Amino acid sequence: MPETTRILLASRPEGRPAPNNFRTETAALPEPGEGEALLKIRYLSLDPYMRGRMSAAKSYAAPVEVGAVMEGGTVAEVVESRDPSLKPGDMVLSYSGWQSHAIAEAKHVRKLNLERAPVTTALGVLGMPGFTAWAGLLTLGKPKQGETVVVAAATGPVGSAVGQIARIKGARAVGIAGGEKKCRALTEEFGFDAAIDHRSDNFAEELAAACPDGIDVYFENVGGAVFEAVLPLLNSFARIPVCGLVAQYNATGPSEGPDRLPGLMRAVLTKSLTIRGFIQTEFAEKMPEFLKEMGPWIAEGRVRYREDIVEGLERAPEAFIGLLEGKNFGKLIVKVS
Amino acid sequence: MPETTRILLASRPEGRPAPNNFRTETAALPEPGEGEALLKIRYLSLDPYMRGRMSAAKSYAAPVEVGAVMEGGTVAEVVESRDPSLKPGDMVLSYSGWQSHAIAEAKHVRKLNLERAPVTTALGVLGMPGFTAWAGLLTLGKPKQGETVVVAAATGPVGSAVGQIARIKGARAVGIAGGEKKCRALTEEFGFDAAIDHRSDNFAEELAAACPDGIDVYFENVGGAVFEAVLPLLNSFARIPVCGLVAQYNATGPSEGPDRLPGLMRAVLTKSLTIRGFIQTEFAEKMPEFLKEMGPWIAEGRVRYREDIVEGLERAPEAFIGLLEGKNFGKLIVKVS
Repeated sequence: MPETTRILLASRPEGRPAPNNFRTETAALPEPGEGEALLKIRYLSLDPYMRGRMSAAKSYAAPVEVGAVMEGGTVAEVVESRDPSLKPGDMVLSYSGWQSHAIAEAKHVRKLNLERAPVTTALGVLGMPGFTAWAGLLTLGKPKQGETVVVAAATGPVGSAVGQIARIKGARAVGIAGGEKKCRALTEEFGFDAAIDHRSDNFAEELAAACPDGIDVYFENVGGAVFEAVLPLLNSFARIPVCGLVAQYNATGPSEGPDRLPGLMRAVLTKSLTIRGFIQTEFAEKMPEFLKEMGPWIAEGRVRYREDIVEGLERAPEAFIGLLEGKNFGKLIVKVS
Repeated sequence: MPETTRILLASRPEGRPAPNNFRTETAALPEPGEGEALLKIRYLSLDPYMRGRMSAAKSYAAPVEVGAVMEGGTVAEVVESRDPSLKPGDMVLSYSGWQSHAIAEAKHVRKLNLERAPVTTALGVLGMPGFTAWAGLLTLGKPKQGETVVVAAATGPVGSAVGQIARIKGARAVGIAGGEKKCRALTEEFGFDAAIDHRSDNFAEELAAACPDGIDVYFENVGGAVFEAVLPLLNSFARIPVCGLVAQYNATGPSEGPDRLPGLMRAVLTKSLTIRGFIQTEFAEKMPEFLKEMGPWIAEGRVRYREDIVEGLERAPEAFIGLLEGKNFGKLIVKVS
């Protein structure tokens, strides 16, 4: 019988997740049935949205049940297959969660082309985060030549792609990140026009100085203080695609006043703003178009990416807790085996 | 020399406007020059946006200067003309403000067709408010057959048109208004599917009960407590066109906490909401299409309207102050002469 080592949700966190919200166990897996395959997980993707799944609050997806395996995207190797489309040794993208092995239905995995790009990119720049950036920016943000696009968590897999795609479309890209090292990477490695450190005492002033023509697109994946500084700089008809709010995922209750909602609505009205939440699954039918466009951009070096690879499944909880505090530098991936 | 009696902005209000924020004077007008006409104002439109013009705060339009004539749309009769396109006796739509007479450039007025509808409709259902409803609902709200559309200030000129157009498009219309009389008019006169009194102690529960399938379009022209009750009822992919926030126009400073902005952004994200501010001028090129569609709807009785006509320019300040508190019933118009 195959076995899996897996990390379960042990309890729901109050605020910041702690190591004791997770529990590791080893369990037997059934043999793969007709149309299924046994997978050995190679890489596990860690992403901010997982914080939402740990809570019971209503969201776009059902929460992970207490006692269930933590969810997540994975790159895996086929060990045994009972489906003609897969054979041992194939590398696939699957949604197998935080574990070492899994049984998957062949129709729910996607075979990866090993010649095109390193397999880990299927979890980052050529996967969900890259697609989120591409679809959200181009479909909702619609940056035009010469406009200014601002994105936070800008060295992350979504933010770095947003800025680089904005530049390909002729817009000016201003990135926000935490710390000097990340900010340097934004301009030197990812080609952003300007980088602002959100830890700076003069963050709002520095952002304003970096956006002399105002902001036309704010790609919101963070929330919190950054949004506050962005709001007064938004131009008329600015677009704000919202794909994440990592800065508030650990919030435990109503925030203290003053109430900023009336001010936001006033800005929406007087500047004809568009605020639009989205989840990348909404654009699923555009995935082939994305791969066709993004693949060459990466091959030509027009879109660069950075990965932060942590060794060992047992380190996933600690790495995930750090992710929510911006400790990673690039797409956070756990090398499982 | 022609004369005009006019109402000026005497001082900027702090919060709720008071009669002493206005001042009346009589002044001489110049003779009309080449391409101009002397107008005798018949009707003055009073609208919530005028509250914004009384303040110095940045908005989509410049504020009225202290000592200047209060702005506003008017229906006027041509008394004397020095332009071939206008002759004495013509009725025109002009933007002449709170006064009895005015000089206007012929190219800035629109001649009204007296046979089509009463001239006052050019200030309401066939004018700026009706156009705001039509353009905002159809271009941004995009109600589909069977969806639920909610609008507040629903007996007002914008709200009543929103609900009736929503029904023409096959949607369910739920209106919110203050008091039993207005609520009755919503269902009996304007054909809304349901009407909710925002003064009710159980307002939020009653709104929820009136929207068993949730809310797909919330046409925001009020803000405040109504928005609060709407938010939890919004369906995924709901659209929120924002054309006004009358409930907060008299606010004098930051609102007390808790801070509702994080909750709003969470809803935007998890429900893929679209919030979109707009001013009807954005859609100006659609005005002919609007008149072509709305005219027959009115003629056929498919869109009804109600006017609240106050006699005498001197009553404009009092009527306007009441408007901000929902005291009018239908499109508020001052009969100037």
